[in-house]
Amino acid sequence: MSEAKRATYDELLRLALERGFFFPSAEIYNDAPAGFWEYGPTGLLMRNNFIRQWRRDIVRRDDMLEIDGSLILPKIVFEASGHLSSLVDPIVQCTRCGTRIRADKYISEKTGLQVDERLSSEEFQELISKYNLHCPKCGGDFGKPSKFNMMFRVGVGAEDADSYLRPETAQSIFVDFTRLSKTMRLKLPEGIAQVGKSFRNEIAPRQALIRLRELTQAEVEVFFNPNVDLDPSKFDQVKDVRMNVLVQAAGEDFRTVNAGDSAKEFGGKQIIAYYFALLQQFYENCGFPQERTRFRELSAKDRAFYAASAFDFEVDTSLGWLELVACNYRTDYDLATHSKHSKKDFHVMDGDRGKVLPHVVELSLGVDRSIFALLDLFFIHEANRDVLRLLPNIAPYLAAVFPLVSKPELESKAATLYETLKREEFSTFYDDSGAIGRRYRRMDEIGTPFCITIDHQTAEVDSATLRERDSMAQSRVKLSEIPEKLRVLRDNQKQ
Amino acid sequence: MSEAKRATYDELLRLALERGFFFPSAEIYNDAPAGFWEYGPTGLLMRNNFIRQWRRDIVRRDDMLEIDGSLILPKIVFEASGHLSSLVDPIVQCTRCGTRIRADKYISEKTGLQVDERLSSEEFQELISKYNLHCPKCGGDFGKPSKFNMMFRVGVGAEDADSYLRPETAQSIFVDFTRLSKTMRLKLPEGIAQVGKSFRNEIAPRQALIRLRELTQAEVEVFFNPNVDLDPSKFDQVKDVRMNVLVQAAGEDFRTVNAGDSAKEFGGKQIIAYYFALLQQFYENCGFPQERTRFRELSAKDRAFYAASAFDFEVDTSLGWLELVACNYRTDYDLATHSKHSKKDFHVMDGDRGKVLPHVVELSLGVDRSIFALLDLFFIHEANRDVLRLLPNIAPYLAAVFPLVSKPELESKAATLYETLKREEFSTFYDDSGAIGRRYRRMDEIGTPFCITIDHQTAEVDSATLRERDSMAQSRVKLSEIPEKLRVLRDNQKQ
Repeated sequence: MSEAKRATYDELLRLALERGFFFPSAEIYNDAPAGFWEYGPTGLLMRNNFIRQWRRDIVRRDDMLEIDGSLILPKIVFEASGHLSSLVDPIVQCTRCGTRIRADKYISEKTGLQVDERLSSEEFQELISKYNLHCPKCGGDFGKPSKFNMMFRVGVGAEDADSYLRPETAQSIFVDFTRLSKTMRLKLPEGIAQVGKSFRNEIAPRQALIRLRELTQAEVEVFFNPNVDLDPSKFDQVKDVRMNVLVQAAGEDFRTVNAGDSAKEFGGKQIIAYYFALLQQFYENCGFPQERTRFRELSAKDRAFYAASAFDFEVDTSLGWLELVACNYRTDYDLATHSKHSKKDFHVMDGDRGKVLPHVVELSLGVDRSIFALLDLFFIHEANRDVLRLLPNIAPYLAAVFPLVSKPELESKAATLYETLKREEFSTFYDDSGAIGRRYRRMDEIGTPFCITIDHQTAEVDSATLRERDSMAQSRVKLSEIPEKLRVLRDNQKQ
Repeated sequence: MSEAKRATYDELLRLALERGFFFPSAEIYNDAPAGFWEYGPTGLLMRNNFIRQWRRDIVRRDDMLEIDGSLILPKIVFEASGHLSSLVDPIVQCTRCGTRIRADKYISEKTGLQVDERLSSEEFQELISKYNLHCPKCGGDFGKPSKFNMMFRVGVGAEDADSYLRPETAQSIFVDFTRLSKTMRLKLPEGIAQVGKSFRNEIAPRQALIRLRELTQAEVEVFFNPNVDLDPSKFDQVKDVRMNVLVQAAGEDFRTVNAGDSAKEFGGKQIIAYYFALLQQFYENCGFPQERTRFRELSAKDRAFYAASAFDFEVDTSLGWLELVACNYRTDYDLATHSKHSKKDFHVMDGDRGKVLPHVVELSLGVDRSIFALLDLFFIHEANRDVLRLLPNIAPYLAAVFPLVSKPELESKAATLYETLKREEFSTFYDDSGAIGRRYRRMDEIGTPFCITIDHQTAEVDSATLRERDSMAQSRVKLSEIPEKLRVLRDNQKQ
């Protein structure tokens, strides 16, 4: 075990490509655009497990409502939300060959300066002149820097009506809020959740699942009365949850706090501390060690345009600290602006406290990045094998079933056990080809925690060998007791 | 019960809108385009249950692989697949006011004729002249009829590269086939499945979830060697499945057949009969009565351009027979055309039978239509109540928990039971407001099969009242036995 070490980015990518986790979209065509990736069979099982855990630890735990809205929304939604004017990247175009590139990235790359993407066109122009920068392809001069909207336009119907692919799932939650508040008997605070695709026309997509043009988000918008404290009995449930916080107030300051004492770190809002604690617990239940996570406060210039305060939930990967969740305090920004543009009233009754326009705290979780981070943290080289040390609740397959050799009596018992485990809704893999050691290695690589081998002894006494991934310990278990044994093993590992 | 009758379309829609099943997208904005709908909290739970059953009865039962591909794909994919030239609607545009409408629908509507959407532009022109048809908005003359491609174009990157939102999930399965065959050790026949959004720029979207611009599909593409028969032991498992078939050979001919005797109905291919039987069983497990389902053969002119033969799996709804699943025999059309366009070899080894370019049978399932059909079949008016008679495996909530009155000791026991049921992963609803009869009615309307009321007796003897939705029978059950009791009740109902 002393020789165990984490895999590099390239090794992780090879695992992803060769073992069915993820791979580039339309890769058989040479000129397919970057930033689109597909989930293969193992990656999808893992992603579904991750989302199931999110539903358990966040959505159901907090009795949230979950909806599934359209990916295409009309222009007016994004005029109201501000995305049409504010979700922009700075670009410059070569006047000779027409190449368009990200202004901030290119200037950083050529000068080593930290360049803020929110500089004005004039400020970009100044930097380009000062450092005498030219087109990287042909050496031509750049035209005037401009802003490139990151939403994909879609024309709807024969009339080609302006619509856009949503850049975040959140907007349908806000737009649907009046119907949901009227028909679903909401009680503040009330979380509304959504998991699904969002789209951003990145100029420079990169690093596989890290910066995608088509991504999967799991978002939660919690609507609350800003004048009312959180129910203390609710807050009490999470008061001992430990969180690392990097605050910006007077320079960077790193602290480890209990949720119960953390309200001052989070702008004095217990409700924010409460949802951050749920998020922390969820990620720990997925296997992320607390000490490798943190909530990093964003300064005013780093926040999204709709956020009054914001923290990124980050995890320490081989690529550095990586943002997995954007936690934004959106105030009543979205409800107010949709109310204004639609001329509908978004106020709701908050019990006997009267009408209120709710404020919103958001947990905007990047599913793809979380999957990437799980592989990054848990794909380990040991002396004699590669092993993906995922928790059983996240691993693509909980178990594998192998007949030791190709003999009808072993294969028939293995097939019966396999069908039994499938009926029990355990994700199970069947493999009858190659040497048994090789079959174990294949399962180690994709993180299967338990392998069950049907051998000659099974034919006689109806027991099989159960092998555990991490310890490689083997024990004999009666066939009839395997489902219960797997259940216990799965539930005993922290989740 | 003699007064029980099915709800009308309008009543179904009211249920959907007022009880959180589905509602129009961006409805707060007056000019939001038609054909986009959102799933509310109850509809989404129901849809997730439906997809879970599909995974159990089709994907896992047949050991298929499931992937999740990009929604945006480059133009070359649809040049190769034929969708760019063939997925078109006939339209005409008014020369005076610019209104564009579907030519075939408008001519049908005005003349009562059956108009085939595949007529040539000249044939549409002739009909328009013959019947002297003009713009329905301004009375102006129509220009020359043309073809309108139903795919949504998307421009990717700063270079605005031509891409499209996929019109079916199937194409990523075909494009990814070489990687999957190389890395996933496929063995023919092998099913590859995908569930997700697809997009069609319908000129005339209508009838809520029936004809959408953004839809959810659950597709299966089964790759097989056309020269090899299905394993008889596999076929044997479904030989007694009863299916209604409407064949076209010599006029329409309706038959009820056993899968085991049905190969001749399905072009002599046992493999097609086998997958149709799985589909039949799946829909019956969702509650559809066999006698209200049928496989309808499509004539050559009604088939999609890639299909050598095709059957629609239909269900008898209040709107008439409704297509839920398009079952297409796509031959090697897709693999051959992608092979040609990408210059990659798509042949695979079929054991010791050598190399083969697999043929494909497809089950292209419309999830939204299936949800609509479930509400249509099972939303029933009885004398004193409305009740949604969904099976427990499909109902949004399996159980509801009510404290009979607002007293701390009842509420605390109810809350504890609610948390217990959530931990057991039962979808459970908690309701403590209003008269108990009203709470039962609310659960009847959204299909909750079991309601558990915590009453004064519970405080004394730790038992509660379990009320069944359909019979309205009530019985007392010990609190500690409720999870097991619910499990038995759920599993005993046919699924």
